[in-house]
Amino acid sequence: MNAATTLPREVALLERLAGGFGRSSLQYNQRHESDAELIRLPGTTSVLALTTDAISEEIESGLYTDPYFIGWMTVLVNASDLAAVGAAPIGILLSQTLPSSMADRELEALQRGVRDACSACGLPVLGGDTNFGTRLHMGACAVGLIENGRPLTRRGATAADRLFASGPLGLGGAFAFARLIQPDTAPPAFQPASRLVEGQVVRRYATCCMDTSDGVLATLDELSRLNGVGFALHAVEEILHPAAFAAARAAGLPPWFMLAGPHGEFELLFTVPEQAVAAFRAEARGLGWEPQEIGAARPQPEISIWMNGCSARLDTRAIRDAYADAGGDARAYLARLLRLNETVTLCDSP
Amino acid sequence: MNAATTLPREVALLERLAGGFGRSSLQYNQRHESDAELIRLPGTTSVLALTTDAISEEIESGLYTDPYFIGWMTVLVNASDLAAVGAAPIGILLSQTLPSSMADRELEALQRGVRDACSACGLPVLGGDTNFGTRLHMGACAVGLIENGRPLTRRGATAADRLFASGPLGLGGAFAFARLIQPDTAPPAFQPASRLVEGQVVRRYATCCMDTSDGVLATLDELSRLNGVGFALHAVEEILHPAAFAAARAAGLPPWFMLAGPHGEFELLFTVPEQAVAAFRAEARGLGWEPQEIGAARPQPEISIWMNGCSARLDTRAIRDAYADAGGDARAYLARLLRLNETVTLCDSP
Repeated sequence: MNAATTLPREVALLERLAGGFGRSSLQYNQRHESDAELIRLPGTTSVLALTTDAISEEIESGLYTDPYFIGWMTVLVNASDLAAVGAAPIGILLSQTLPSSMADRELEALQRGVRDACSACGLPVLGGDTNFGTRLHMGACAVGLIENGRPLTRRGATAADRLFASGPLGLGGAFAFARLIQPDTAPPAFQPASRLVEGQVVRRYATCCMDTSDGVLATLDELSRLNGVGFALHAVEEILHPAAFAAARAAGLPPWFMLAGPHGEFELLFTVPEQAVAAFRAEARGLGWEPQEIGAARPQPEISIWMNGCSARLDTRAIRDAYADAGGDARAYLARLLRLNETVTLCDSP
Repeated sequence: MNAATTLPREVALLERLAGGFGRSSLQYNQRHESDAELIRLPGTTSVLALTTDAISEEIESGLYTDPYFIGWMTVLVNASDLAAVGAAPIGILLSQTLPSSMADRELEALQRGVRDACSACGLPVLGGDTNFGTRLHMGACAVGLIENGRPLTRRGATAADRLFASGPLGLGGAFAFARLIQPDTAPPAFQPASRLVEGQVVRRYATCCMDTSDGVLATLDELSRLNGVGFALHAVEEILHPAAFAAARAAGLPPWFMLAGPHGEFELLFTVPEQAVAAFRAEARGLGWEPQEIGAARPQPEISIWMNGCSARLDTRAIRDAYADAGGDARAYLARLLRLNETVTLCDSP
């Protein structure tokens, strides 16, 4: 089988785990086809958006250590999924497992992080479940509503669409590289904000949308797989957040590595048809928001990026699977990326 | 402070953890006042029911060991909360953390338990989140809908109401006693079914309802606290499941210990006004279901049970707090219950 017919590793695993479960006739989306689950509400024209996401591997791996930040991210990762379907926020349920050894000061910082993120996202805490155990585990379930109109999913892009990001990219990758590979280097400041307000505007113009929680290149690989299109990205230095670009340079790493990681920046990537771009930009400007055009869709299902004056093709499937292939070890993962960098095809098209 | 003004330990802790969080103006219930969170859906007359519950302490303590049963209970504990508010089931989101050491056979049994419970409860899997870590952690978030009429909460009982249970009681307690205190004894068969269908009938007749996930006496203590009423229970041998009564006798324990557990049987306890009892029973009979009348509400906020030909008063607040006071140690907990048994006031009223 070639890359086009093989499922990405995590999609294949989830298919194995969930394959036997029954589906709901109320569900609007198929599995993997949207960031939040979309449920038609009987007797109404509304669609409910539901998502659940936990901060667990990030704590175990040492990527997240600060209790305030862990609390903040518990809310943010769920808010980001609601943003990607264009839902208005309703609220959040928390599922916390607290170690009995946790100091009061840390517990207060954790709850403060949750509270501040809820308040920033407009997601009141509706309820939750608190357990005690040996390890900290933070889960949540966020709920949103789409009262009118079509929900936004990961499917619907055409090869003629233009590609946007809700903000500069690469900070999530730069943060993870510093934390896990260069622990003596201070990571760049990273505390993402939700794109819930922007997502509700995006929904009315975009043909597909997905958040970059798993990294930009994994997101583009998934959108390419689901839509049967490719993406040609603008120059890497234009797309990257200046701090991510500087971090790559300081570490002597190819800048595109900042887009490769499995830890993303929680921005939205979405496609807008040519004829809708002007109206979309005007409405975004009304919010004081400047979406970034980062490239365009292409009929050929390949991902390329402009580097060193060339269009360089990236094997996003291999890049996406590299972390799992490295057994989740950060240094083995970096070695794999460096090998993949040698195979990047440069200048196959002007 | 006396028991009437002191909060139960877990309520006080949750108040401390959640006290700073903002509330939603769409929320129908106050904190602790219903088993599932009740959210008015803007632009509709429907109320959404949401709950999240994890199987975490039960795994760490060794109470739950069988993967199929862990999968089953992950769904059931959430379904039970929807049942207690009388919601129709919509679906469930899973949040699994799987240890990489888990054998394929165990993983398959776990997923089969989830699948069978979902199918038995009519709760399709809408989506979820899968992580990998050192310990198994199973969380879920269940969603239900109340399309018309008043949601059912833990508040609304009057001192003239009659008290019902959806089925015989004490099996959850008997199971936990066998598992944690007498590991050489086979626990009674225990695989609770959801009361989702019954809950939708209960909602139209009952004044308050709560599931017994935390044990019967903790449930009655909470209903007493929230409603300012007491409960006089019928004879313990009438209320208990025969297998729970037999287990208590075989272990030489007072039978009421089977109602004391922090691990309950996932039945519903609810109050029905005198004038609604006949219609309620008739409709229940139509479902082939025989709700059990287990006692009556009383103006005095005390819990009593008929034992040895006497009405015995139980200090449910002390019983409820005993597990936390024992630091979660099963043998220290049993020692506390035995001391509390000596203080049970017998025959203070005929």
